[in-house]
Amino acid sequence: MSDPLLAASVRYAADGAVEILDRRVYPFEVSWVRCATSEDVAVAIERMVTQSSGPLFAATAGLVLAARQARRDGPEQAAARLRSAGARLVATRPTNNHIRDAVHAVLSAALGGDPLAGDALVAAVEAAARAHEDGYLARSAALGAHAATLLDDGSRVLTHCWADAYLIATVRAAEAAGKRLEFVCTETRPYLQGARLTAATLVEMGYRPTLITDGMVAAVLADGLADVALTAADRVTLDGHVINKVGTLGVALAARAFGVPFHALVDAPDPQAPTAADVVIERRDGDDVLHALGVRTAAEGVTGYYPAFDVTPPHLVTRIVTERGIHLPNDVKESL
Amino acid sequence: MSDPLLAASVRYAADGAVEILDRRVYPFEVSWVRCATSEDVAVAIERMVTQSSGPLFAATAGLVLAARQARRDGPEQAAARLRSAGARLVATRPTNNHIRDAVHAVLSAALGGDPLAGDALVAAVEAAARAHEDGYLARSAALGAHAATLLDDGSRVLTHCWADAYLIATVRAAEAAGKRLEFVCTETRPYLQGARLTAATLVEMGYRPTLITDGMVAAVLADGLADVALTAADRVTLDGHVINKVGTLGVALAARAFGVPFHALVDAPDPQAPTAADVVIERRDGDDVLHALGVRTAAEGVTGYYPAFDVTPPHLVTRIVTERGIHLPNDVKESL
Repeated sequence: MSDPLLAASVRYAADGAVEILDRRVYPFEVSWVRCATSEDVAVAIERMVTQSSGPLFAATAGLVLAARQARRDGPEQAAARLRSAGARLVATRPTNNHIRDAVHAVLSAALGGDPLAGDALVAAVEAAARAHEDGYLARSAALGAHAATLLDDGSRVLTHCWADAYLIATVRAAEAAGKRLEFVCTETRPYLQGARLTAATLVEMGYRPTLITDGMVAAVLADGLADVALTAADRVTLDGHVINKVGTLGVALAARAFGVPFHALVDAPDPQAPTAADVVIERRDGDDVLHALGVRTAAEGVTGYYPAFDVTPPHLVTRIVTERGIHLPNDVKESL
Repeated sequence: MSDPLLAASVRYAADGAVEILDRRVYPFEVSWVRCATSEDVAVAIERMVTQSSGPLFAATAGLVLAARQARRDGPEQAAARLRSAGARLVATRPTNNHIRDAVHAVLSAALGGDPLAGDALVAAVEAAARAHEDGYLARSAALGAHAATLLDDGSRVLTHCWADAYLIATVRAAEAAGKRLEFVCTETRPYLQGARLTAATLVEMGYRPTLITDGMVAAVLADGLADVALTAADRVTLDGHVINKVGTLGVALAARAFGVPFHALVDAPDPQAPTAADVVIERRDGDDVLHALGVRTAAEGVTGYYPAFDVTPPHLVTRIVTERGIHLPNDVKESL
């Protein structure tokens, strides 16, 4: 089976620049944003060139660029430059912990031993970046294998937003187990990740998803048109709160009301987030709500409001699937 | 206070043609679709040139055109032509009962007495049409006065889709009582009636609404950003089911989960609909879900699904407001 394009959406060009697939326009355009410096990468993340697990790979690549930019620095200067680049990357988006964890992992590995500089530092950062990326993909594959056990052959799966590596891994694991799934995807306004990224990737993988608007979730579940609701989580707290793309809470409420299980996928809960109060919910530019793909959709004189994520409490979550297995939300901290 | 444009969105041109404000593009374009015949009106309704209570006024105007088209017919032929035009109009859209009731009212009044033809029939249809329209506006005004009593000064009102005459009447009644309201409006995909029609009309009336995507309703209510949820109902059954624009069920679920009252506005329950099984839920072209204002929003290879309405059960409805007053959903049949 060939990889869907979004399975590898951050790459290195022949000249060493980082190229990030522009998820704002995919699949209508396949356009790669070139980043020559770690600052370019940070700006690209801020501007939503990439999202979901894309920022993890962008952040590791950004640190590789920072190490290369520091090639002529001495060890202390190079370490300071890397730490500064890492802080800048972490500051781009607050809610998902992928960037924070990626920066921490790479900097700990590359700066935690003997002071390095020049080519040795570059090599160390490259190796740490690759190790972190490989680790994430391995955790996603393990998660997918667990998640697939929750799905029956023929299950109709409701998705919200784009669960990225977790979804690809889950679909592959289900296929490996001989299960064929069907999909109902929300479009996920305002950026339409469901209509574009989830839908395009499932089509690439050989499926024919049904698309609904975000307001149709309750009607679809009330009418028995999906058997299970499955989303990623940008963050899971130690007490089982699921923080994910805004709209997930409504999916969970409707799933509970109509007796449909709602499962959230995350490689691990966040040990730094005991509960939801420890997670910053990102508010993005309200103007995004007033447009679709750049086209004005709203009357003049209104103000858009855009909380990018919402918080689903544990009592509305059926299971949380991590790389370690399948957990009741109240027990998820035991997966650490 | 001047009328917002949508308060009178069906009109007669100097030459007698009917002109219907094109709600598919309002407020970005103020464009009137000309209808020379009742068939033109039926096609305009089918194509969503007008919606919400617009089809009531379009249907009465369509019958006036049919009567004029029948001006040279004898009484029997004219009556047959009017009945046929009425059946055609009723067949345009199945879920809202405005068209059915308008056609019934006008035909009963114009054809129920001595057989008429020519100018006398035209005059009778015109008078019956005006009477039905005026009755609806009077019922909406009464409804608005009742609904306003449920809203406190400073209330932040969450709307979904476009409640048309009911909303305009409620806002006016609240203002007359010295209450100033605030509004949070869902955009209401795929046609964006909230982003366009509700938002534009509230701006015309002097408000500055906040706009959210349909998936943000639960987050907004969980975060305490609205005090009350208020929608129209396209139909209310005698046992208190609220049939309204798809997404209303999700609003009601979230309102219940977070302790916010959810009220539905309808001039009267439908005596012909004892329960939800008696209401046909219109399914519109799934391709509409794949576009926004004509721009493709979805990946190729997906299928759109578009149930235009959903059904909110009585236990999720706080009050139903009719022209007669404020009712518990289980008691709404007593308002007849």
